[in-house]
Amino acid sequence: MVKILAVGSIALDSVKTPFGSIKDALGGSAVYFGVAASYFADVSIVGVVGKDFPQKHLDALRSRGVDTSGIVIEEGETFRWSGEYGYGLGERDTLETHLGVFEKFNPLIPSELSRSEFIFLANIDPELQFKILRQATNRNFAACDTMDFWIEGKRKELDETMRRVDMMIVNDSECRQLAEEPNLIKAARKVLRMGPHAIVVKKGEHGALLMNEKSMFSAPAFPCEDVFDPTGAGDTFAGGMIGYLAKAGEISERQLRQAVLYGTVMASYCVEKFSIEGICNLTSEEIESRFRQLKELTSI
Amino acid sequence: MVKILAVGSIALDSVKTPFGSIKDALGGSAVYFGVAASYFADVSIVGVVGKDFPQKHLDALRSRGVDTSGIVIEEGETFRWSGEYGYGLGERDTLETHLGVFEKFNPLIPSELSRSEFIFLANIDPELQFKILRQATNRNFAACDTMDFWIEGKRKELDETMRRVDMMIVNDSECRQLAEEPNLIKAARKVLRMGPHAIVVKKGEHGALLMNEKSMFSAPAFPCEDVFDPTGAGDTFAGGMIGYLAKAGEISERQLRQAVLYGTVMASYCVEKFSIEGICNLTSEEIESRFRQLKELTSI
Repeated sequence: MVKILAVGSIALDSVKTPFGSIKDALGGSAVYFGVAASYFADVSIVGVVGKDFPQKHLDALRSRGVDTSGIVIEEGETFRWSGEYGYGLGERDTLETHLGVFEKFNPLIPSELSRSEFIFLANIDPELQFKILRQATNRNFAACDTMDFWIEGKRKELDETMRRVDMMIVNDSECRQLAEEPNLIKAARKVLRMGPHAIVVKKGEHGALLMNEKSMFSAPAFPCEDVFDPTGAGDTFAGGMIGYLAKAGEISERQLRQAVLYGTVMASYCVEKFSIEGICNLTSEEIESRFRQLKELTSI
Repeated sequence: MVKILAVGSIALDSVKTPFGSIKDALGGSAVYFGVAASYFADVSIVGVVGKDFPQKHLDALRSRGVDTSGIVIEEGETFRWSGEYGYGLGERDTLETHLGVFEKFNPLIPSELSRSEFIFLANIDPELQFKILRQATNRNFAACDTMDFWIEGKRKELDETMRRVDMMIVNDSECRQLAEEPNLIKAARKVLRMGPHAIVVKKGEHGALLMNEKSMFSAPAFPCEDVFDPTGAGDTFAGGMIGYLAKAGEISERQLRQAVLYGTVMASYCVEKFSIEGICNLTSEEIESRFRQLKELTSI
């Protein structure tokens, strides 16, 4: 049985950075998540692509051990996104978005996958997130991402989803926007009162914050000296984190904290190269080495 | 003998924030530093004020145990700064700066104070910083702050000072500017090659980074839910940090890391109130309590 199910986008990304550019590379939230999670546990991704989706990308996912049986190939074009980063790499400009077959994405989870224990709802329409939760009857743990577009346009539906997930995984501006509160700590507390038992706030180069009713954990970012392309870092973080939780088999405070560090490690490898290049060929020693370095970074 | 000597500004600050405003309150880098350091070790501050400087402010410093014998009172007006913060509290607008007697500040360190073991050169003209270093013949440890104005206008003099201090304490934008390098980790490494054995990069609500030739330490900010006025937080941080080092009596990696956390604790109390109100009446239990919370915040 597949342990982790992730539902999200599968995309062809074109990215420009000051250090280079790439066209129609494998991307999308479900892809980054799945590749990162695959180092820790069995993972299946559900999404939709068009007939133009290159077979080599499906092969790349399968060779990483990602189960692609939930990927539907439909008549039409694959979701394409293009964006550009400046030297800061913190802010990006979206140049073009062609939703293609993703526009009518309406995932039906195959019955075997619907029995997954860990569910990741990447940044998609909260109505779809809610529908997936109802199908995932065997779940132990569900986490959810979102974005400003849904917070503004489908708040009621998003609230329904938030009431039913165990964890929200959002970036700092989304957390502030969800709570309508500028102070990040207060904002995170407020989101906790909306339903989830835990929230992880991703702060990019400033690390991540894990908060639940009882405690707070602050993880530094890995001190990357060569950030090449930040695309996918957030979903890679989620994949490493939930992958580790699925492997650990328990969701204690200690495991949650370690999971945040493993998410941080995976994200650090992601941003060093284009697309999934930085995370598709790692050894467990490379992962453990950065995990140790991260722990050392905050130890007294 | 006084253990710590700090040289910097003594000011009357007028501050507007979304939560309130205050006029001609006690401020200045030497003041914040001195008050914070006074909880850990003997500290003396050197600076200049005008005849208009209220006696009550000198009394407030003395009642905190700060030695004010190095404060010179000159004919003229005290340095006045006024600024305004928006809701973000990260960026501030300087409304007015009246240098007054601070314009011709030319510190002569009294001979007793020049024998101090720990020296903090707050953000003043690098020529003066250099001159003070030459007077401080008994020093074990000297740390230095600076700002964009001196990086741009007196780089050669600043380089001379940097070659002679043990530690630079700067914020993230100053670190990037000093190194002319956008990646903060690379920038900090580059500053280390300019002379100091260690650098502390202050990142405001994102914590602080300590780096030396051998290792790196990432400290989270204290999770403040009520940031009221960030004025003076950086100098308060430096005061807590160097105060703790002076108390510890040794500058090991472990002590440096603890010192960064004590600096963080003191800064967290500073930002909760106007002027020095948040840091002039703390108990050691209040300091230790936040120190424990900070350690818990990153422990696995």
